[in-house]
Amino acid sequence: MIYLDNAATTKPDGECLDKALKYLKEEYFNPSALYAEGYKLNKELRSARENILKTIADTQKFVLEFTSCGTEADNHAVFGSGKRGNVVSTLGEHSAVYSAVNELKRQGIEVRFAEINGDGSVNISHLLSLIDDKTSLVSVIHVNNETGAINDILAISKEVKAKNSRILFHSDGVQAFGKIPFKLTDNIDLYSISAHKVGGIKGCGALIKRKSLVISPYIFGGGQENGARSGTENVFGIKIFEYAASKKYSCISENFKKAEEVKYALWEELDKSLFSLIDLGNSSPYILTVIAHGVRGETVLHEADDLGLIIGTGSACASNEKNRYSRTILACGIDKALADGVLRLSFSPENTVDEARTAAQILNKIVSNRKNIMA
Amino acid sequence: MIYLDNAATTKPDGECLDKALKYLKEEYFNPSALYAEGYKLNKELRSARENILKTIADTQKFVLEFTSCGTEADNHAVFGSGKRGNVVSTLGEHSAVYSAVNELKRQGIEVRFAEINGDGSVNISHLLSLIDDKTSLVSVIHVNNETGAINDILAISKEVKAKNSRILFHSDGVQAFGKIPFKLTDNIDLYSISAHKVGGIKGCGALIKRKSLVISPYIFGGGQENGARSGTENVFGIKIFEYAASKKYSCISENFKKAEEVKYALWEELDKSLFSLIDLGNSSPYILTVIAHGVRGETVLHEADDLGLIIGTGSACASNEKNRYSRTILACGIDKALADGVLRLSFSPENTVDEARTAAQILNKIVSNRKNIMA
Repeated sequence: MIYLDNAATTKPDGECLDKALKYLKEEYFNPSALYAEGYKLNKELRSARENILKTIADTQKFVLEFTSCGTEADNHAVFGSGKRGNVVSTLGEHSAVYSAVNELKRQGIEVRFAEINGDGSVNISHLLSLIDDKTSLVSVIHVNNETGAINDILAISKEVKAKNSRILFHSDGVQAFGKIPFKLTDNIDLYSISAHKVGGIKGCGALIKRKSLVISPYIFGGGQENGARSGTENVFGIKIFEYAASKKYSCISENFKKAEEVKYALWEELDKSLFSLIDLGNSSPYILTVIAHGVRGETVLHEADDLGLIIGTGSACASNEKNRYSRTILACGIDKALADGVLRLSFSPENTVDEARTAAQILNKIVSNRKNIMA
Repeated sequence: MIYLDNAATTKPDGECLDKALKYLKEEYFNPSALYAEGYKLNKELRSARENILKTIADTQKFVLEFTSCGTEADNHAVFGSGKRGNVVSTLGEHSAVYSAVNELKRQGIEVRFAEINGDGSVNISHLLSLIDDKTSLVSVIHVNNETGAINDILAISKEVKAKNSRILFHSDGVQAFGKIPFKLTDNIDLYSISAHKVGGIKGCGALIKRKSLVISPYIFGGGQENGARSGTENVFGIKIFEYAASKKYSCISENFKKAEEVKYALWEELDKSLFSLIDLGNSSPYILTVIAHGVRGETVLHEADDLGLIIGTGSACASNEKNRYSRTILACGIDKALADGVLRLSFSPENTVDEARTAAQILNKIVSNRKNIMA
C-alpha cells in the first residue's frame, strides 16, 4: 500500500510510540497527583512543553498549552481573542477556524473573510483592506490544508500589526509544523499545532501563545495547563507528540528536500493530458493538489484505493460537510467542472520517489481508462 | 506497590490496550476519509458509540458524542444548555462543572449552588427550593468524587422536572460510570463520562444526550460527531474506552461487591483512635474518605508513597487549585482542623482485600508514629 494522505493524518511513528507506551503500561498516574509518581509525570509534561515549543519559538517569549487537537487549539484562539469589534480571516482557512469565526458571527461579532489567490494563498492587500481600528483578531492559515499554499505569516503579521498594533494575530500551523522551517516572531500572538500530522497520535494538539498574552480559558475545571485548559492531561499522547516533533525538527531540512523530490517526481510522471496542476505558487512540498480531467476525484480515490494507493480529494475534515465542492478550491477561482476532479496527494518523509512514480502510473491508468470508457 | 487512587485515574486495562494498539500501528487512518480504510474506522466508531451507550441507556432514546475528556463533556453540557435565566448546581460538584457554572456567572447568567449534606450528597430540598420558572439547567454530580456519596439522580431529576419540565438536567457521571449499576431515564438530558476512570486512557470521554435534544456544539470545525464535536476522532482512545466499558459492565455487580469488601476491610483494619470516617450515607464502594487525626493528609500521602502505598487527599483535579482546603469537604460541614487530614482511598476491581488490610496497617503506622513524635 502506498499512503499519500498524510495531510489527513500520519501513521504514528513506531519508535516514538514504543518509547511512550510506558505512560500507559507503568506510569499511568494522574500528573496532578501529589505523590512522587504524579509529580514525576508533571515534570515530564513540563519537558514535553519545553521541547515542543523550542522547535519553533523562543521559550522565553512564548508558552505552550496542550489541547486535545488542532481544532480545539484553533477554537480556543478564535473564541479567546475574537471578543469585540470585528474579526478578519480568510476564505482559505481550515474549517476549524472558518466555522469558529462563523460562530462568532452568529454571536454578533462582525466577521470579514479575505479572498484567496489561485494557489490558495491569501490575497494580502485584500486582507489588509479589511482591517481597521476595531479589528480584534486576524487569523491566517500558515499552510493551506487543501492546496499546500504557504502564507508568509511572518510578513503578513508584521503588516497587520503595522496597521493596528492592538490586533491579536493567530495562525493555524497544523500543516506547517514539523514541515516548513520557520520561527515565530513577536508579531504572532497565537499559533495552533497538531500531533497526528507529524507522527504523533490523534487526540493531542497545542496552542502556542505569546507569554504576556492573557486570553480566557476555553475548557474550565481543575486548572490544568496553568489554568488555560482543564482536564486530566493526556500524558501518553503528549509524550509521543514531544518525541515525534523533536524527531521531525532534527532533520526538517533534509525532510523538506526529500518531500520536494517526491512531489516533483509524482507530478513529472503524471500524464499532462489527463491532469492539470492548480497554481503552484509558493507551496509546501508535502502537498500536491492536481485536477483529474473529466473524472470525479472521489471516483479516482476509490479506484486508486482498490489498486493499493491511498489519496485524498481535499480536507478529510470537510468530507463530513454537505457540500460537494470545496469552499477553498472554489475560492481559488477554479470552476465547478474542474473542482470536481481535485485530488490531494500529501506526503511524509517516509514516502519515496519510487512510490511517487508508481502512484502517478496508477493515477494515469485510472483516468485514461475512465476517459476511454466515456469516449 | 498498592495503588489506591483509582478515582484520580486508573491503570489502562492491559487486555483492552493490546487489542486497541492496531489502531495506532496499522489502522491509523482518518475516519473521515472517503477510502475504504477510513470508512471502516468510521464504522468502528459507530460500534464504539453504540456499545458504550447501551451499557447505561436505551440507544433508541439517547445518543453519545465522544469528547476529549470528562471535563470537556461537562463544559459542553453546561455551556450548551445554561444559556438563559438561572442555572442551579451544587457545592459538591467536580471542578469541571463548578468552574464552568462560575464562568456562566461571569458571563451574566444567575447561578445558584445547593448545599450538601455531611456525606457530600446534595441537600435535595435546598436544591429544589432554588429552582424556578426561569431555571434553564440543573447539574448534579452522580457520585461525589471526593466523598463517594451517591446522589439518586433518577429521583432528583424526576423532582426537578416535576417542578419545571422545561429544565435540562445534567449529571457528571465520571465516578459512577462502570461502577454503580443504573440506567438513564427520560428525566436525564445530559450525562458525562470519562474513559480513564474505568481502564481506558486519558484524552477520551463522552457526553450522552437525549436524542431529541439539540444543544449548540462546543468545538467547531470539520463537523465530526454529527456536528456536535469537531476534530479528528481519537480512534485508539475511543476503542479502548469501548472495550474497557464493556468489560466493566459485563461484571458490574461482582465488581461492586468486590469493591465493597475491599472498602470495608480497609476501614475495619484502620485504628479508630487515629482515623474517623466522614458520614458514609449512601456511598460508592469505590471511594473511602477518612480523616487522619492531627496529621495533614498531604504528609500521610507522602509517607505512604515512600512505603509503597499510593493514596489521594481529595480530587487530583483540585490539587492545582490554590486552596489548601477542599471546597466539598468544607461544604460537608467538616471544620478546617479535620479537613486538613482528609485522605481519599479509591479502588478498582483489581484491588484485593489483602491490599486493603496492608494499606490500613501502613496508614495506622504512619499516623501513630506522627502522633508519638508530636506527643
